[in-house]
Amino acid sequence: MTLEPKRASCRTAMAVYTEVSDEDLNTFIAQYALGGVLSCKGIAEGVENSNYLLVTETGPYILTLYEKRTRRDDLPFFLGLMEHLAEKGVGCPVPLHGNDGEALRELCGRPAVLVTFLNGMWPRRIDPYHCAALGEAMGTMHKAGADFAMKRPNDLSVAGWRPLFDACSARAHEVRPGLAEALERELDTLEARWPAEGTLPVGVIHADLFPDNVFFRGRTLSGLIDFYFACTDVLVYDLAICLNAWCFEPDGAFNATKARLMLSSYRKVRPLSDEELAALPLLARGSALRFLLTRLYDLLNHPPGAFVKPKNPLEYWNKLRFHQQVSGLGAYGLE
Amino acid sequence: MTLEPKRASCRTAMAVYTEVSDEDLNTFIAQYALGGVLSCKGIAEGVENSNYLLVTETGPYILTLYEKRTRRDDLPFFLGLMEHLAEKGVGCPVPLHGNDGEALRELCGRPAVLVTFLNGMWPRRIDPYHCAALGEAMGTMHKAGADFAMKRPNDLSVAGWRPLFDACSARAHEVRPGLAEALERELDTLEARWPAEGTLPVGVIHADLFPDNVFFRGRTLSGLIDFYFACTDVLVYDLAICLNAWCFEPDGAFNATKARLMLSSYRKVRPLSDEELAALPLLARGSALRFLLTRLYDLLNHPPGAFVKPKNPLEYWNKLRFHQQVSGLGAYGLE
Repeated sequence: MTLEPKRASCRTAMAVYTEVSDEDLNTFIAQYALGGVLSCKGIAEGVENSNYLLVTETGPYILTLYEKRTRRDDLPFFLGLMEHLAEKGVGCPVPLHGNDGEALRELCGRPAVLVTFLNGMWPRRIDPYHCAALGEAMGTMHKAGADFAMKRPNDLSVAGWRPLFDACSARAHEVRPGLAEALERELDTLEARWPAEGTLPVGVIHADLFPDNVFFRGRTLSGLIDFYFACTDVLVYDLAICLNAWCFEPDGAFNATKARLMLSSYRKVRPLSDEELAALPLLARGSALRFLLTRLYDLLNHPPGAFVKPKNPLEYWNKLRFHQQVSGLGAYGLE
Repeated sequence: MTLEPKRASCRTAMAVYTEVSDEDLNTFIAQYALGGVLSCKGIAEGVENSNYLLVTETGPYILTLYEKRTRRDDLPFFLGLMEHLAEKGVGCPVPLHGNDGEALRELCGRPAVLVTFLNGMWPRRIDPYHCAALGEAMGTMHKAGADFAMKRPNDLSVAGWRPLFDACSARAHEVRPGLAEALERELDTLEARWPAEGTLPVGVIHADLFPDNVFFRGRTLSGLIDFYFACTDVLVYDLAICLNAWCFEPDGAFNATKARLMLSSYRKVRPLSDEELAALPLLARGSALRFLLTRLYDLLNHPPGAFVKPKNPLEYWNKLRFHQQVSGLGAYGLE
């Protein structure tokens, strides 16, 4: 098994899974008052679903066809959340409703949604100002989600990790000798010490706020996309995910300045309790394990010749080891 | 070696090879008077180069970064041709010139060009009217190219096939038993019988007018894209390529109605001599062999885990066998 972490970081794989014919598209678009179709091109956004940049006589939109990894029953939560957040002023794509009032319909046998086009580009090189803007946007999103009525459990939180581990453990040594044993020890620790329900504030989290899901225009954050892992979970876990996704340098070093800026700008919008802060190192370990396990699973179950190149799970092994050694919040740039 | 021709036909693989950072893009775009960048997304267009749909304050454009399979020395021919054709009224992308007058510049260490955005979608299901419109557009393009001053030899014509065959012959049996022997016989025949220089009219041909390079708005052809195989060759060879690319049904049957519409609407714009018509079956065999050999080469040299799924060479084996059995132009719908 070979991995090319260096090359993977400067390349993007993408796949459009469903071909949409012009006939089908014209029938679909007739259900909206958007004028005729000028162009429709598959784009490199999201790896789970098929996304198209659709230009009509009234402007650009994003058309998403949901492929099999997104559960149809979850779609009302995701779409309702985007509408709720947008109404509260959070920059994000907004589902459009057709002439019949429905946002969710069918195209090429798949659930399909048309959403507004969000200007901006995701940052390829993370600067400290990106992290500051991200912290503020996440705090705003968490507050805006507080009165969102729907719930969705996080099936990739602590209870979901052991089944993933069991599915990979027999072959984990192919990726790194001793990996299965180390992961099992970590899993035991996290299961024993994970915050009990009711001990930390819960709400809507994005749960996948990686750089490619955060758009900027110049130095200004223009919005968040890809809410298809969003769920109801401990709020500060979203920050723990972003400590991993935004604050490590390409060489593996943790950048405490970025972490400090992210956390402090979040706290200006939504203060963090002592309990939330104290839980951060453990939640960051959990987040590292979660992405390590899903990447490991994808790598070991990667069909040869598949379109999407698997990401390197060992990147998260290094992140996990960093958080295991953290003794206090100073490591994250806090006093 | 396994192939999935059925699934391949309803899926699109694509790859963006070069990540363009917002900093690099802003520097690049400052060389044009197009306003600020609103968005830039990798798109599924062309498999050889990286293409982005770039939206600025003045509208949408296509940004192309040329990857290693496109020779830098050939770019002035391709770009000059697009400008020449557009000036003559052929619908195609037009390269934009920067403030310094240059169309070809550098981005992320690669040759890069910004071209106008062409409205329309390529047809996923070929109807006879598509073939009629294609014939007319090709005739118009051939006439418009008549006074284009630059030349570029076709390195994928008859002289280029034997080296390709030699690079694949030892492993061709993995794809089909006896394939190498059959291809060598065909190659011998084509080399012996290929029209000598000066016997048929020569000019600029597109040489890759597959459906994904021809855009329609409704039933109207809006333009041609992807001129990166264009070259100076026998004009009627372009029609031979399109007989293969447009006139076979997904089940392998040849549709003579489509062929007749394509050829007859071409002849209304640019008449075909008896010599050109008589050469058509042999040129169609040559075109079938050309795409068979490049697909075979790509399949046998496909790195495991590569982004782009190889196309099935045996599709062209069946097309080749059809043209081998053609005894007259009646097979193509002509009297």
